[in-house]
Amino acid sequence: MTKEKAIRLLDAATGRKACDLVIRNAKVVNVYTHEIQEGDLFVDNGLIVGIGGNRKAKKEIDAKGAYLVPGFIDGHCHIESSHLTPTAFSDIVVPYGTTSVIADPHEICNVCGNDAMAYMLKSAKNATLSIYYMYPSCVPATPFEHAGCILGAKEAEEFIDDDSVLGLGEMMNYPGVVNADEMVLDKLAVAYEKKKNIDGHAPNVSSSDLDGYIGVGITTDHECATAEELKERIARGMYVMLRQGTACKNVLDLVKGIDDKNYRWALFCTDDRQPETIVKHGHLNHGVNLAIDAGLDPVTAICMATINAAECYGLKDRGAIAPGKRADFFLTEKLTDISAKQVFIDGMLVAENGSILKPSVPVKAEGIEGRMNVKDFSAEKLKLKLNSNHVRIIDIIPGQVVTKAGEAYVKRDENGYWVHESSKDILKLAVVERHNGLGNVAVALIRGYGMKHGAVATSIAHDSHNIIVIGDNDEDMASAVRNLISLGGGITMVKDGKVLDNHRLEVGGLMTGDSALEVSKTLERMHETAYKELGVSKDVDPFMTLCFMALPVIPEYKLTDIGLFDVVKFDFVDINLD
Amino acid sequence: MTKEKAIRLLDAATGRKACDLVIRNAKVVNVYTHEIQEGDLFVDNGLIVGIGGNRKAKKEIDAKGAYLVPGFIDGHCHIESSHLTPTAFSDIVVPYGTTSVIADPHEICNVCGNDAMAYMLKSAKNATLSIYYMYPSCVPATPFEHAGCILGAKEAEEFIDDDSVLGLGEMMNYPGVVNADEMVLDKLAVAYEKKKNIDGHAPNVSSSDLDGYIGVGITTDHECATAEELKERIARGMYVMLRQGTACKNVLDLVKGIDDKNYRWALFCTDDRQPETIVKHGHLNHGVNLAIDAGLDPVTAICMATINAAECYGLKDRGAIAPGKRADFFLTEKLTDISAKQVFIDGMLVAENGSILKPSVPVKAEGIEGRMNVKDFSAEKLKLKLNSNHVRIIDIIPGQVVTKAGEAYVKRDENGYWVHESSKDILKLAVVERHNGLGNVAVALIRGYGMKHGAVATSIAHDSHNIIVIGDNDEDMASAVRNLISLGGGITMVKDGKVLDNHRLEVGGLMTGDSALEVSKTLERMHETAYKELGVSKDVDPFMTLCFMALPVIPEYKLTDIGLFDVVKFDFVDINLD
Repeated sequence: MTKEKAIRLLDAATGRKACDLVIRNAKVVNVYTHEIQEGDLFVDNGLIVGIGGNRKAKKEIDAKGAYLVPGFIDGHCHIESSHLTPTAFSDIVVPYGTTSVIADPHEICNVCGNDAMAYMLKSAKNATLSIYYMYPSCVPATPFEHAGCILGAKEAEEFIDDDSVLGLGEMMNYPGVVNADEMVLDKLAVAYEKKKNIDGHAPNVSSSDLDGYIGVGITTDHECATAEELKERIARGMYVMLRQGTACKNVLDLVKGIDDKNYRWALFCTDDRQPETIVKHGHLNHGVNLAIDAGLDPVTAICMATINAAECYGLKDRGAIAPGKRADFFLTEKLTDISAKQVFIDGMLVAENGSILKPSVPVKAEGIEGRMNVKDFSAEKLKLKLNSNHVRIIDIIPGQVVTKAGEAYVKRDENGYWVHESSKDILKLAVVERHNGLGNVAVALIRGYGMKHGAVATSIAHDSHNIIVIGDNDEDMASAVRNLISLGGGITMVKDGKVLDNHRLEVGGLMTGDSALEVSKTLERMHETAYKELGVSKDVDPFMTLCFMALPVIPEYKLTDIGLFDVVKFDFVDINLD
Repeated sequence: MTKEKAIRLLDAATGRKACDLVIRNAKVVNVYTHEIQEGDLFVDNGLIVGIGGNRKAKKEIDAKGAYLVPGFIDGHCHIESSHLTPTAFSDIVVPYGTTSVIADPHEICNVCGNDAMAYMLKSAKNATLSIYYMYPSCVPATPFEHAGCILGAKEAEEFIDDDSVLGLGEMMNYPGVVNADEMVLDKLAVAYEKKKNIDGHAPNVSSSDLDGYIGVGITTDHECATAEELKERIARGMYVMLRQGTACKNVLDLVKGIDDKNYRWALFCTDDRQPETIVKHGHLNHGVNLAIDAGLDPVTAICMATINAAECYGLKDRGAIAPGKRADFFLTEKLTDISAKQVFIDGMLVAENGSILKPSVPVKAEGIEGRMNVKDFSAEKLKLKLNSNHVRIIDIIPGQVVTKAGEAYVKRDENGYWVHESSKDILKLAVVERHNGLGNVAVALIRGYGMKHGAVATSIAHDSHNIIVIGDNDEDMASAVRNLISLGGGITMVKDGKVLDNHRLEVGGLMTGDSALEVSKTLERMHETAYKELGVSKDVDPFMTLCFMALPVIPEYKLTDIGLFDVVKFDFVDINLD
């Protein structure tokens, strides 16, 4: 609020001047009382003025008895998972009634550090959606890989004062917290100093460790998988998020733990939601509707998606339809199946019947385009020399991001190099460092992908986002890597030296300014190609599966640019077993 | 939180180091889940560590199955109403389980402006109680009287950044807000700029005006008298306080409006609580217990008195018994009649069985002692010359602060001066300006006080706190005023030139460093004297009645240092009717 805004609001509230807009015949959902108020909602200068009263308005919209719901606030998401730039992301999620998000840009920051942070903040200013950020707390995610940069307390200080930065992003390094690691605590101290929030990420942390983790001021967790975990965290003063992402779907399990006392400390979030999922199922409303279907009272669910998130992040200007709040809300015919018909942000109609009315103006990704800094790459580097036929192998578990630590007997040529056998579903997996021209290429074997012939490469490889490539032959693999570099990142498929298809992600190799619909179409087409032309097993998602193969915090075997990593042993292991 | 505190908390939480204290066999009230957790509560370095776990402690206390309740937070109070300095106030309220208060020092600031603010902040630092302040928004309360100073936006800026100043105090000038008065909005803008709270005070404000008042960011109201008013405010996003003061007792009416949805937006407060009331009925626990007696769920009531207040004022470090929160809590045998047996602040036992263990060290009230700057006072100034026998008169309504606009026929001497008639219960009332030596003395007539002979004078006269004196003869009245000046403020009673008794309030004429018990005893004795020796009617409180006779915002007739004021007409009126 400012003095000028206050004067204008008072003039509008008291009827001294006409309001910008009135939405007549609305059923307004009141998150404070849980009541539905029937009436005319007056809006002026982007703010809610009030319901009813002796007021005039310059413009009228007839809600025809539809429900007016406060704009949804996504408590935690990674915009990069949508493959979209913040402005393109805004254009796809706003039509679903999401009007604010709290985003952790740790994917792109793993690639381009504070340059990415600056770009994300600049892009947010151009977006119709209100985008707040949490400064990434864990870049790189682990010391077992090379990311584009290292973000410490010093780097965090550069951005922590920004009004759009609400604090420190998900503190994934929970062992570091619990063991009072100096570097971790230095980062927390940046948030302490500025009285900003710290988001959590604490799967399976419980009892005394959880006391410590929460005790040092980590206030949210979106990694709960069971109602018991949710209750354990809320009882200790945490806000718990019910996540409905593309891979991680926790709403139905977690909603069982919500009751009419503890709901106050629960929010919804999407975390990682792929473009196809958004286009197919919507955004935050998807999780909200699932919870309602499962029996949660609709107004309680709406409170969780609105005022609770606002309270959690100290966003005093939103989360409710009440005097002085931002006029961010949407109309829906039903409360049992929430579907935004018309979405208003800042008092303006911005989306209708699922479409954005005026696309956000993109921001040029200066300095963070491409970022494919690969040194001395050649097919030669993909060769896998073995000392034994008996080797460690990454076993894909269909539909999951965890893998099994497998063993296999493979074939070697006369020089000891691995040879692909068409009778066995074993392929080569390589991670190519792409950030600082280190020249690192690590190679391992993987089973269960199903591909018969060719190669797939991508620059989306959590969390360091080096290049990950899979194939049956080094030539196609090398060709895929080279093509990906020339694209500036994305996903590519190669067979017999020919590029089958590309998904270009020109911003840091992770995001594109294309629309969600285009991206979704491209990916749908490429999925088909991967199954039909490359013979990838229908049990696995050809791209998502690859994206998680370099993430050394998810068991059991993963491959980083340094080598094969055993997450259970928390150390690198030799591929040779004998 | 700081890095050092975090490291120590982590060591304590994980059992790496022993905790300072464990409270065994407690029933811990969880304000997040509303559950009662049975177990051992560990505390270290002033912070809560957690319940149970494999931990050791240097010291043990056996709760013997008593309930452990988070320390109560008084959402709104004026410390000056207790007649006690902040340190003396701390010592009396802490034993009742109040561990934090949000205080508006507008009484003492009316006398000494920012000097008082500085003193109150300094005193707060010495108090066991956590004292937060709201910077007074309405000094002077009206333009119809002379206070000690005028506090505007500029003066507010001096203190608004202080961590102990949570925002702007109760905005009593609601017409000024609704009508967008520039000076009022300048003050609000100080809070906007620093993202601080603004407290409200909006009796009888409703519908469109209330939309405006709330819309500009005023977030609390403690002036609700009915459940309907409470609901109307909560529905618009306000926090509503259930007040149980000495004169204003709203808990029983307001608790009717609380339900299991809206309780989240309700707090308790004491506002103005006299020393005798505190000694007799306790502090915030009084209102909480009344609400529970009236049927409110005890844990819900506790949430309102703790976490809700913490949320309302952004006090993230308190309001719950959870890891990392301040170890402010108390033990009570029952939840149906909450009575603090042992009170802990910052992890230390500070009060037991109703008594503070170690009194707070007082702060010298440098620069704000006395403040009885009266110029050219003489008995002559108390003479009341009338043009008519038919006059306006202030009619006291027993037990209330409102008065009736009365008329009377009185007697005059040969020079036209009013003459006291012992057959009629009509006395002289005078207000003597005491702040800036203006020499103002205003005189009027008052009916219903009952006093037969003598005079009573006090420097407590809301909100400007000039001297108010009542009597049947000018000599005793003048003598009372003179004696009050020499005391440096307080209350005094005079009869036939002899001082009957004194209550000395040496700090700004409003507060004393004496203990609550001493003050309470003095006042009890003086009440007796007023009834027995002066013949004051038992229907009225001899001192409280006087304190509100100069407050020109409470109908119908009041007297300021400028003259007789008709609050309904909102203007000064002539005492002569014909």
